[in-house]
Amino acid sequence: MNQISKIFPFWDKLDINIKNLINDNLKEKTFLKGEIIHEAYNDCSGLIIVLEGCLRAFINSDSGKEISLYKLLDYDVCLLSANCVMKNISFDINLSAVADTHCYIIPKEIYTTLIKESKEFSEYVNKILEVRFSDVMWTLEQLVFHSMDKRIANYLLDYGNEEIIITHDIIANDLGTAREVVSRILKSFEKDKILELGRNKIIILNKKELLSIGDR
Amino acid sequence: MNQISKIFPFWDKLDINIKNLINDNLKEKTFLKGEIIHEAYNDCSGLIIVLEGCLRAFINSDSGKEISLYKLLDYDVCLLSANCVMKNISFDINLSAVADTHCYIIPKEIYTTLIKESKEFSEYVNKILEVRFSDVMWTLEQLVFHSMDKRIANYLLDYGNEEIIITHDIIANDLGTAREVVSRILKSFEKDKILELGRNKIIILNKKELLSIGDR
Repeated sequence: MNQISKIFPFWDKLDINIKNLINDNLKEKTFLKGEIIHEAYNDCSGLIIVLEGCLRAFINSDSGKEISLYKLLDYDVCLLSANCVMKNISFDINLSAVADTHCYIIPKEIYTTLIKESKEFSEYVNKILEVRFSDVMWTLEQLVFHSMDKRIANYLLDYGNEEIIITHDIIANDLGTAREVVSRILKSFEKDKILELGRNKIIILNKKELLSIGDR
Repeated sequence: MNQISKIFPFWDKLDINIKNLINDNLKEKTFLKGEIIHEAYNDCSGLIIVLEGCLRAFINSDSGKEISLYKLLDYDVCLLSANCVMKNISFDINLSAVADTHCYIIPKEIYTTLIKESKEFSEYVNKILEVRFSDVMWTLEQLVFHSMDKRIANYLLDYGNEEIIITHDIIANDLGTAREVVSRILKSFEKDKILELGRNKIIILNKKELLSIGDR
């Protein structure tokens, strides 16, 4: 029994023929840490699904400069490694393994058929595209403006407490931004062990680091 | 007879009920040059379709810095002014009129129904999302990887005219840099006889050289 039903939330709704098509053509592969999985404009790797591990999507310039776009964790689906299937996507990304990563791969021919034959599948793919687009916009804003993480750090420091009772909505309102933006930055701070997020509560774990982000 | 059939290439395939729903709810509006049509995180403007004119999608920072994402010309559709309809889009854009622009607007409730009820419509919307995603990736690459002189060269070449009516301020806004930076680079181009600077006007004298700077 494979894990594919955990990846696609609509699995039970799928026609048996579609299920068989996926099951019969699913490839399993482990990529080693540091390995390049997909290289821009070089190939069409098919739909890559992370089972366990971490992949990084990035673009690079001719001079070798790199920009990370987003990371893919357990059960995340990488559409853009199969961008050949999406006729209106005119860019390509690189994909590398941040850690040893165990993946499923759905070959591009099967992926193309799935989009055509299954409404559930094509709707799901479009949702993921919206998420990736949002990821890239977040990266763009960070790159160009790079101010909100600083502002949130300073905002939290202004409370003067280690434990702050507040919602992301309130912070967003106070800083004139969207709740999603605040949540993403707070989550990235949590990932870096700078703070801990609770229900309507933020606990500062590493004030020194927060001060440095706030440029104080 | 309105122009909606020219905008949606799949118009003839639509069910009569869907056609009526669109026709009965289509609003027509003219925005004046410089007018802000949609402000990020402020409202849900619905689906905006350019009939004639030019709109600019951009994001801005708290400090007032702006980055142009893409422009919308005749018959282009702006999905992201109705991003409330797309549950997985967590960012928002601003939209302003570059010139006096005549538009159709499909209200968000109707847009939501159209996506749900019409396969043609939802497929079309997804195609446009792929195009906009590609536009933004191009902007990101320009911002991160390309030097400002190259970016200005490409920006001017994109106009396709020898004579461009524009201010340094507008170029700076579009490219997300300071007016001083733009003026300095334009003056260096003028010194090299690549172009001639007039009052709110730039005349390209040596297109070949500009192409070479733009790496085209």
